[in-house]
Amino acid sequence: MSDSFAAGGGLLSRRRLLGGGLAAGAVAAAGSLGLVEAVRAEAALPAWQTEPGLEVRPYGVPDSHEADVRRAIIQVYKELAPAYSFSGTPLHRLRGTITPSGLHYEVHHGGRPELDPARHRLRIHGLVERPLAFDLEALERYPMISRVHFLECAGNSFMNAHAEQAPQMGCDMLHGLVSNSEWTGVPLRLLLEEAGVRPEGRWLVAIGDDAPGLARSIPMEKAMRDGMLALYQNGERIRPEQGYPMRVLLPGYEGNMNVKWVTALQVVERPAHTKDESGEYTDLLADGKVIALSFTMGVKSVITHPSGGMSMSGPGLYEISGLAWSGTGPVTKVEVSADAGASWAEALLHPPVLDRALVRFSIPWKWSGAPALLQSRAHDGSGAVQPTRSEWKKRYSPANVNHNNSIQAWRVTQDGAVQNVYT
Amino acid sequence: MSDSFAAGGGLLSRRRLLGGGLAAGAVAAAGSLGLVEAVRAEAALPAWQTEPGLEVRPYGVPDSHEADVRRAIIQVYKELAPAYSFSGTPLHRLRGTITPSGLHYEVHHGGRPELDPARHRLRIHGLVERPLAFDLEALERYPMISRVHFLECAGNSFMNAHAEQAPQMGCDMLHGLVSNSEWTGVPLRLLLEEAGVRPEGRWLVAIGDDAPGLARSIPMEKAMRDGMLALYQNGERIRPEQGYPMRVLLPGYEGNMNVKWVTALQVVERPAHTKDESGEYTDLLADGKVIALSFTMGVKSVITHPSGGMSMSGPGLYEISGLAWSGTGPVTKVEVSADAGASWAEALLHPPVLDRALVRFSIPWKWSGAPALLQSRAHDGSGAVQPTRSEWKKRYSPANVNHNNSIQAWRVTQDGAVQNVYT
Repeated sequence: MSDSFAAGGGLLSRRRLLGGGLAAGAVAAAGSLGLVEAVRAEAALPAWQTEPGLEVRPYGVPDSHEADVRRAIIQVYKELAPAYSFSGTPLHRLRGTITPSGLHYEVHHGGRPELDPARHRLRIHGLVERPLAFDLEALERYPMISRVHFLECAGNSFMNAHAEQAPQMGCDMLHGLVSNSEWTGVPLRLLLEEAGVRPEGRWLVAIGDDAPGLARSIPMEKAMRDGMLALYQNGERIRPEQGYPMRVLLPGYEGNMNVKWVTALQVVERPAHTKDESGEYTDLLADGKVIALSFTMGVKSVITHPSGGMSMSGPGLYEISGLAWSGTGPVTKVEVSADAGASWAEALLHPPVLDRALVRFSIPWKWSGAPALLQSRAHDGSGAVQPTRSEWKKRYSPANVNHNNSIQAWRVTQDGAVQNVYT
Repeated sequence: MSDSFAAGGGLLSRRRLLGGGLAAGAVAAAGSLGLVEAVRAEAALPAWQTEPGLEVRPYGVPDSHEADVRRAIIQVYKELAPAYSFSGTPLHRLRGTITPSGLHYEVHHGGRPELDPARHRLRIHGLVERPLAFDLEALERYPMISRVHFLECAGNSFMNAHAEQAPQMGCDMLHGLVSNSEWTGVPLRLLLEEAGVRPEGRWLVAIGDDAPGLARSIPMEKAMRDGMLALYQNGERIRPEQGYPMRVLLPGYEGNMNVKWVTALQVVERPAHTKDESGEYTDLLADGKVIALSFTMGVKSVITHPSGGMSMSGPGLYEISGLAWSGTGPVTKVEVSADAGASWAEALLHPPVLDRALVRFSIPWKWSGAPALLQSRAHDGSGAVQPTRSEWKKRYSPANVNHNNSIQAWRVTQDGAVQNVYT
């Protein structure tokens, strides 16, 4: 039985293994996984089969054997400013689309504040009819909505943006500043309407209650359309790292605008050009100009299995799997190439494909054992397509690191090592 | 401005607060929440605004102020068998639909085993062409799927089934043996097809690797249709309490059939009538007969906000919110009554409404301050409707506690206490 390939380099139809109509023996026909062993006689019974198990605990944690599944912590100014740090989600150790809250990425300008939730208030003031302050108890009575959304740091994938040689790192260090949660909270619209926004109040300044007082200007139209005051993350109260007890959530917008530990929404006429938005979070263009307010995260994808630092266990059948997302709307298509971009095949998007949420894609791949170059390219409903790294670099100043949504290429060497390469 | 009511007892249209077209001031018109305070001068700055925050940690946990959000542990034979226990998810403290993995419900017959994942194997044997054994590393190469599904213990809500007087407890103790996760793993079909099931192999016996060796018979047709060997839960490896490193997942089937720590799938001709299925998990009927193999969980819902043990903070506008699910397919409708069942109004189902997953419903409610009786009633696509408690009781022997999907009624007293009542 011959294989029917969807593109070069061994890519099979995306429905080959998962779709309907897989006949018994198809796995063997496409190349036996060769990973099975015959059933053998039981050895002496282990302790866990002969003794009662452990007592229950009120709040569970991962198994002790999974202790190395952890955030990758990057402190770029470790001596000067230890409280300034990035913590990347280990995307290559996870499956599915929800990020466990304990592994959600973090970016801190001044560490994680330890707030007293009973004292915390969200104030809405400025160009409003009725300045208001809300405590946690009051907010519990408001109608709530839930949405699964990704958050991504504007600086995600900065290593690939600025390093001259492709850095040899894993998905956690290279692309881990993106995570996906079910967020629940009160629509900002309800709170703003209760305060009564004056016609000239076209912007909001959201201010966090941490020591750096991170502040960002938010278009009123965005806040009214789909902004949320998020109180819950994956079912429970937002974790301290993600803004306990409350944060702004602006679906599709760069991470820092989703202000954590938010304590004030000041309604103003025009952008405030705070230190955070005029300094750190601007995009430097090739022509010397600057995008002062760049909000929406671009369409992007990354192959997580296999990815940098992993090693293949010999030729044969694999499932290439990864994550895709776009700040504009749902991902419409992800293509995968296994032959350095000479041909592309459409990957399977695993349902449900949600708006501005991570989506899992996959495609079976028969690795011949020869060197290969794996890439994924995402499309969204606006027609945007993920650029190659060199296309992306052309647009920006060499110093720019923000909004790098370029294609990640992984080289698979003959001995099965998976390496980061620039294309 | 007068309110337009959707049903008796103060229920407003389900789209009143969340749907489109809410004009500014509508909240005030429907009854001001009365929970706001004027902005006041800042007191002395707290420490978290003046000092750098805490250092990052590789794996996060909830804020220390949330320590009372925990599983409710019930050990019915605490002295005799401490390793036999139920742990209920605190549904009334959660929002959204995903259950944080640390709060997923547990039922243990012999405690939580501490397996060595490197030694763990899943064996497929019996009526197959090729007996196979899979280790974790081998399974990582197979195609994986992700599905959001609820799991519910057959005995969930057993307190309401057998206690003569309605027990005064919260949602965690009464209904907490249901949880909802994104599960990721390998379709059982792929593994069974690789082993080559013989035509007479119409059942599977799944056996857990814990000391009690929990074993259940599973129809081959179900395993082939949508059964999963689940390896990941909410993105990361399955938690120890939920079957680390692998469990069976049978969408819509009672919890114990989703065998945890699964180590063997024995292909057989007919049900094995194991100790677990002939003893603990049968349904005793009113006519003296027994349903020996009752798999699918019925259509069900519960109002979580407000719910037993909570207290209302005075008359005015509230959002009634709860969870609904069915083992048959997607929930199609949830109705809510605030006047002891005299009238019902349709609640809003929050998207995405997924197949055999928890769905959040809500409806605004203007509480007059008079005593009220709140109930929710779920429907599914098969036409099934949640029965009242007395209707449900009629079908079963008084001793039966399993598969109690009857309507939960909460009484709100004049002083705002929320109590469990039988109807």
